[in-house]
Amino acid sequence: MIKHGTLVRASGQSHQDMLIIDGKIAAIADHIDAAAHPQATVIDASGQLVLPGGIDVHTHFNIDVGIARSCDDFFTGTRSAVCGGTTTIVDHMGFGPKGCSLHHQLEVYKAHAKDNAVADYSFHGVIQHINDDILDEMAAMVTEEGISSFKLYLTYGYKLGDEDVFKALERLNQVGALTTVHPENDAAIAARRSKLVEQGKTAPKYHGVSRPLECEAEAIARMINLAKLADNAPLYIVHLSNGLGLDYLNLARGQQQPVWVETCPQYLTLNETVYTREDATKFILSPPLRPQAECDKLWVGLEQGQIDTVATDHCSFLYQQQKQPQHADFTRCPNGMPGVEARIPVLFSEGVMQGRITLERFVALTSTNPAKLFGLYPKKGCLAVGSDADLILIDPAADSIHRHSELHDACDYSPYEGMKLKGKLTMTLLRGQIVAKDGQFLGHAGQGQFLHRQPFNPIVELH
Amino acid sequence: MIKHGTLVRASGQSHQDMLIIDGKIAAIADHIDAAAHPQATVIDASGQLVLPGGIDVHTHFNIDVGIARSCDDFFTGTRSAVCGGTTTIVDHMGFGPKGCSLHHQLEVYKAHAKDNAVADYSFHGVIQHINDDILDEMAAMVTEEGISSFKLYLTYGYKLGDEDVFKALERLNQVGALTTVHPENDAAIAARRSKLVEQGKTAPKYHGVSRPLECEAEAIARMINLAKLADNAPLYIVHLSNGLGLDYLNLARGQQQPVWVETCPQYLTLNETVYTREDATKFILSPPLRPQAECDKLWVGLEQGQIDTVATDHCSFLYQQQKQPQHADFTRCPNGMPGVEARIPVLFSEGVMQGRITLERFVALTSTNPAKLFGLYPKKGCLAVGSDADLILIDPAADSIHRHSELHDACDYSPYEGMKLKGKLTMTLLRGQIVAKDGQFLGHAGQGQFLHRQPFNPIVELH
Amino acid sequence: MIKHGTLVRASGQSHQDMLIIDGKIAAIADHIDAAAHPQATVIDASGQLVLPGGIDVHTHFNIDVGIARSCDDFFTGTRSAVCGGTTTIVDHMGFGPKGCSLHHQLEVYKAHAKDNAVADYSFHGVIQHINDDILDEMAAMVTEEGISSFKLYLTYGYKLGDEDVFKALERLNQVGALTTVHPENDAAIAARRSKLVEQGKTAPKYHGVSRPLECEAEAIARMINLAKLADNAPLYIVHLSNGLGLDYLNLARGQQQPVWVETCPQYLTLNETVYTREDATKFILSPPLRPQAECDKLWVGLEQGQIDTVATDHCSFLYQQQKQPQHADFTRCPNGMPGVEARIPVLFSEGVMQGRITLERFVALTSTNPAKLFGLYPKKGCLAVGSDADLILIDPAADSIHRHSELHDACDYSPYEGMKLKGKLTMTLLRGQIVAKDGQFLGHAGQGQFLHRQPFNPIVELH
Amino acid sequence: MIKHGTLVRASGQSHQDMLIIDGKIAAIADHIDAAAHPQATVIDASGQLVLPGGIDVHTHFNIDVGIARSCDDFFTGTRSAVCGGTTTIVDHMGFGPKGCSLHHQLEVYKAHAKDNAVADYSFHGVIQHINDDILDEMAAMVTEEGISSFKLYLTYGYKLGDEDVFKALERLNQVGALTTVHPENDAAIAARRSKLVEQGKTAPKYHGVSRPLECEAEAIARMINLAKLADNAPLYIVHLSNGLGLDYLNLARGQQQPVWVETCPQYLTLNETVYTREDATKFILSPPLRPQAECDKLWVGLEQGQIDTVATDHCSFLYQQQKQPQHADFTRCPNGMPGVEARIPVLFSEGVMQGRITLERFVALTSTNPAKLFGLYPKKGCLAVGSDADLILIDPAADSIHRHSELHDACDYSPYEGMKLKGKLTMTLLRGQIVAKDGQFLGHAGQGQFLHRQPFNPIVELH
Repeated sequence: MIKHGTLVRASGQSHQDMLIIDGKIAAIADHIDAAAHPQATVIDASGQLVLPGGIDVHTHFNIDVGIARSCDDFFTGTRSAVCGGTTTIVDHMGFGPKGCSLHHQLEVYKAHAKDNAVADYSFHGVIQHINDDILDEMAAMVTEEGISSFKLYLTYGYKLGDEDVFKALERLNQVGALTTVHPENDAAIAARRSKLVEQGKTAPKYHGVSRPLECEAEAIARMINLAKLADNAPLYIVHLSNGLGLDYLNLARGQQQPVWVETCPQYLTLNETVYTREDATKFILSPPLRPQAECDKLWVGLEQGQIDTVATDHCSFLYQQQKQPQHADFTRCPNGMPGVEARIPVLFSEGVMQGRITLERFVALTSTNPAKLFGLYPKKGCLAVGSDADLILIDPAADSIHRHSELHDACDYSPYEGMKLKGKLTMTLLRGQIVAKDGQFLGHAGQGQFLHRQPFNPIVELH
Repeated sequence: MIKHGTLVRASGQSHQDMLIIDGKIAAIADHIDAAAHPQATVIDASGQLVLPGGIDVHTHFNIDVGIARSCDDFFTGTRSAVCGGTTTIVDHMGFGPKGCSLHHQLEVYKAHAKDNAVADYSFHGVIQHINDDILDEMAAMVTEEGISSFKLYLTYGYKLGDEDVFKALERLNQVGALTTVHPENDAAIAARRSKLVEQGKTAPKYHGVSRPLECEAEAIARMINLAKLADNAPLYIVHLSNGLGLDYLNLARGQQQPVWVETCPQYLTLNETVYTREDATKFILSPPLRPQAECDKLWVGLEQGQIDTVATDHCSFLYQQQKQPQHADFTRCPNGMPGVEARIPVLFSEGVMQGRITLERFVALTSTNPAKLFGLYPKKGCLAVGSDADLILIDPAADSIHRHSELHDACDYSPYEGMKLKGKLTMTLLRGQIVAKDGQFLGHAGQGQFLHRQPFNPIVELH
Repeated sequence: MIKHGTLVRASGQSHQDMLIIDGKIAAIADHIDAAAHPQATVIDASGQLVLPGGIDVHTHFNIDVGIARSCDDFFTGTRSAVCGGTTTIVDHMGFGPKGCSLHHQLEVYKAHAKDNAVADYSFHGVIQHINDDILDEMAAMVTEEGISSFKLYLTYGYKLGDEDVFKALERLNQVGALTTVHPENDAAIAARRSKLVEQGKTAPKYHGVSRPLECEAEAIARMINLAKLADNAPLYIVHLSNGLGLDYLNLARGQQQPVWVETCPQYLTLNETVYTREDATKFILSPPLRPQAECDKLWVGLEQGQIDTVATDHCSFLYQQQKQPQHADFTRCPNGMPGVEARIPVLFSEGVMQGRITLERFVALTSTNPAKLFGLYPKKGCLAVGSDADLILIDPAADSIHRHSELHDACDYSPYEGMKLKGKLTMTLLRGQIVAKDGQFLGHAGQGQFLHRQPFNPIVELH
Repeated sequence: MIKHGTLVRASGQSHQDMLIIDGKIAAIADHIDAAAHPQATVIDASGQLVLPGGIDVHTHFNIDVGIARSCDDFFTGTRSAVCGGTTTIVDHMGFGPKGCSLHHQLEVYKAHAKDNAVADYSFHGVIQHINDDILDEMAAMVTEEGISSFKLYLTYGYKLGDEDVFKALERLNQVGALTTVHPENDAAIAARRSKLVEQGKTAPKYHGVSRPLECEAEAIARMINLAKLADNAPLYIVHLSNGLGLDYLNLARGQQQPVWVETCPQYLTLNETVYTREDATKFILSPPLRPQAECDKLWVGLEQGQIDTVATDHCSFLYQQQKQPQHADFTRCPNGMPGVEARIPVLFSEGVMQGRITLERFVALTSTNPAKLFGLYPKKGCLAVGSDADLILIDPAADSIHRHSELHDACDYSPYEGMKLKGKLTMTLLRGQIVAKDGQFLGHAGQGQFLHRQPFNPIVELH
């Protein structure tokens, strides 16, 4: 039982008590009498905010990107998640052996997560290639396996061409799945990178030069239009890093097209000036960090309701062993950074406490909207009777300084090291169990459950 | 000598006289004494507007599109042009035999035009394929041959992929040429067309369904971004037919990117409702005619200075012999329509006389801007001492009805048949010679001259 | 009973039959057996569209504007309305004697309408002045009298200053009324008009010069912001005539502010070029007709869902007796024009048949949206069981030419004289009674009923 | 002579030497031989940026606002200015005794500044009331006195109504003056403030509540449209604090209207969260500080070239004696804060060093643009031969912490106390004399000269 807290939903706030039974929210009322539930543990949330547990729909645990394997597996990754207020993650399956089926990868990833996951979890399907077999598999993945979102890449090894993208969009739309996409123009990046390499320009700062924001914006516009042409297929853009792409999305939304967009804390709070630092490789990821002007545009978009979710793209590599050794050549440096534990505290401080976004919108961005888009609502993503009792408590009056030494991942740095944060996460509950408290992990490997997600809901209304 | 007329430039109007010697404008003054030039023919332009001759930078004369050859050659096409107030055309070279060089096609087209052209002329290079030889040829085409613009296709047989587009943009930028592009997404069109054909949906109205405006808008956004990435290469979008593409262009211009855009009278004054008419094949062209909503958006764009030129994409096929027989199957119907003779009268009536655009802007759109963008200014495109005396006279008080029977092309219909027009073209002069008067052609084959164009001027300022 | 028609609602179309009993829609079904209702008159609507009767929320019947009295009273005005497919009107009460109360005017107008009205009717309150008495009256007007909308003027004799506007907005918001406004900046108009008069510039074309679109746009921005400041009071802008005002409204809507906007057929289909015609005074109204560029922008706004209603501002004066005599001095010419009978046919032809708007949106603009905004829904404005059987039948295949000689008002001209119209209104039913058929009036004076309107619904969702 | 520096102009950068003779720039060249000018003092600017001296066109020194007199006079104010890199200020004349003439106030202010000013200076005329005498005086003020800009207030005691605003705009346009305006809607502020006072809500945080951003945005839209109606009079909006006003301005600029806008560092770097601090009265000014969302929008506008100048609105009151005592009642607290010394360092750090704006744009915003708009160019605002040698040197590699204890004004606090700054101002020269170096004031009272400004240049092109 949680008493005296301020419950925050995407739709409003209330001072109410909450009763939890068997891992689910059993009652919410202005006053619930503790004496009537003598067996209940009572948490006093006076002065604290009670929010639905965070949902991070963009992580890459245990991933092998060819030149390196990420340092967080499903145990350390989800341990870090719950300690950062995130009780559900939706990871990406990874590409797997060439030509492998969607189901093959699902089995591989279920094996990765089982016995390890601390948070509840699901996976996005990842489209490695398109052929009739893959198209045929999709329906079963959605209805039988509960995998109702699939990701396409327009760059990297398994990029898809327009024809395949079109086929994927059409079919995924038909079978009730949401298409997500990593949007960057491969040909332009390849051409620019070749030239930089020829000129010996391989220091970290050229990483950003090799893939300017127009690479990303182009691919966003392409996907928007192909989705529209493919019977108005629903589309979700991941890790938006720039304002031009947002302008394109706004045009589509103005026409009521079903497109949504995610950004990440790094694109809001870090900028390209880090690429001249000595530890620049910590920040090599794709899309790269942009000029501060783009951060400002993303904040404005967030404030105006034009961005739907904030996820992390957590994909951690060890700085000392994996990143720093490639300081001389950005093309060899593994792309990615940790972040699953920092998402809630950083966005709360810079967003809510700075007055940029309301508490309600914070809940929508970090929990309710991702739950609705990815078939988890109302089991997850809300404070409602019958929902899983995934909860976080935040003390808005406490301040802290972000230190990697206090985090729970397997990485050796945090990109937000030293950041002053207003507000502090004090407790995380997963299905009613306290899994983190005052910075201490109290859960155990394997307690996370696989989530059979619902098909995409075409009439979804976000906050 | 032209007396008592109202001279209209892109920058303003004046009531002045004009003296022409040896085909060039020799003097412009408030009063030029006819007695001082006894040998001069005096044209009394009282009550008339005197404008620089029209420049149509988008025609396809004598073109073989595989399934048909257009019915206008350089004689009938340019005869029609001058009778419609257009004294200069820039035609497209066509693709030629597979793998042929740029110079090869230039020779072919010079041969087509020589002894036939009635208007002055140049050609756009057309990129059939990209390899080192083609890239190497480009510099010489610009500097030695005066061909300072090249066109890419993103659909049709010789479409280019992103990698080749990027190379072309980079090189053309380096050698001082403007890249023009036919923007439509090929894969989406192919997929949609296949499905329509499978369903037996091949009536003319499915032509538009097979290539919705998003096909075009996607390709515009792609080109804008690739051009930006290719060292900010200058870019010219042809035959814009929709508002979304214009929105994308406006975003780029807001960032000072060097992009320009052309539309055509058909996209302003005709809409998709014609595809249900019995003679619908007359209107089959690509991009197709759009809903009236798009026409309205283009007008607004034209009014607000967001569109730079109005050309025609004149590509005429005989209705009776070439188009009507394919009424049952739009995929077999040759794409294109005539228009070179209608451009000036239709835009003058619907644009100027309806109060949508000023006279000055009319001159800019039909003559001055294309001259500046395509290396013809100030020889063409303006009323200035030293410029070619290419002139048209318009009587704004006269009305008429547009009839193909009064035109001078080799086609058998006009898409604007029966249109009520306010204002009437009364005379066309090419380098001082009257080549058309009151609807009568007074010129002769071969009087048109090849124009060696200047390289693209990167600091061009349009009106 | 209406059989075989295509029922058109703001939300979609269906081929269904409809049964009417006691003036209300009693049943809607795929097939209703005529034999089961032997006493019913069966209307065969094969090939016809069946729409909810039009609602014109902007008329001025019987109005005295000081320099003239309008020529249509509640009989001729509403006769004209029903013959034009409009079964409900919301008229304006007029200012009345100086200092008079709101209730006073309501009695006056009820007397005007009673025994005369052919269509159902209500009134907008009109705010002549603000003091405590007026503010106190407002609540009773809404709840007891069913007058749930009030109009302010920012120009003309009874214009309100910012302080009074603010008070009115606050109070009307509190009592559940919608504030509507005639937005034009009085000081700028006065200054410009004085100067024109001094210069002897009083021909009709100077009417528009005296009140350019910025006068209107300024007042729109002012009202938007004052409404926001007055506790986010709901606001309805009447007779929008220009694109800049629409831009301002779009900004407010982007912030979820409760503002709505009406335009009229004259601002869509006529432009300022009429002011140089000999019969220019026919078109003197305020705001004046604008350049065609503004019409185009309004069409784009209509197409994109940015405009909510189309009304008429019907305010008719006799051309021969009242308008033409003031041809020499626009400042003495009564402002206004007829239009209540032309609204449905003109918007259907130019909007639906030209492909600019869908049938559904046509219904929303002319009937459903005004019903929802002005407290008449679902009694009026929809095809639903239990709603009043106010219906119109339209034959989309029939064409006609608009002639005043065939209209039913008391005026002596129509501003749309000679317009070619696609689609034809064939029948109007008011509460189940045929009141017009094939251009013949079949109703009678006094059959119209006063409508006690509901308070403004703050969660209204329009189409 | 300044050697080895990086000269920064609004149009670009160069590594050049500069020779100064008699207070003016005598030569700029890649290399100037010190030996050839043996009498010259050589300043080694290695590693430093050399910029034109700052111009702050918005200060209020020595002002009496009725409830208090500001604590900085022309000596302390301009001493602070030059120590902050600002070598020219344009102050406001203040209202003076009721009904006084423009010339009267000019004499008063000249007397204030003479013998006191350390920086060069001019004044904006301030319009207290409009009548024929005032209108008549304006021409002489511009041409004889060199006062080519005048400010209107739409709120406060001497607010002008629309009619007077219109007259002022028209006349000022005719006589070659730029109209500047403090835009806030008076009626809405008065109504909201009354209600707050009634409710006892007079704590500092209600200051912002009493005048939300819509008060400002409304007045901006009003001024834009009145200026357009008054023969397109040029208009300058001071101290923009919000994004909606910027949206309105952007619409006007899209139509090529001559409007410009200023913001201030406080609206970029401080937000409304300060109003809950104990020392909240330090930040009471009008318009008030806004939510961080508005700051973000202003940064985006600054980045995209939509804002033209950054000034300060320096109007300092002593915290201990004048502001803090009114902590209980914001309506009694004098409005204003110091800032003239912080402008250059704060904007350099947050703008240039954060990568939001380029160095060139920094120069444009702080010096070149204000010089051009206010008739001081090219005497001031540029690095060109013949211009005054007003220069500042900045070391971009040095960091500092902003402390009021190191400033040179007469106030007792700085709103930016404790801010970490990247880059450091190292020297200020006024007409070739070093007036500040490494934080030390080296000038003397009375060395500042009155500047006879040029009339407004209607074809001004800003950067």
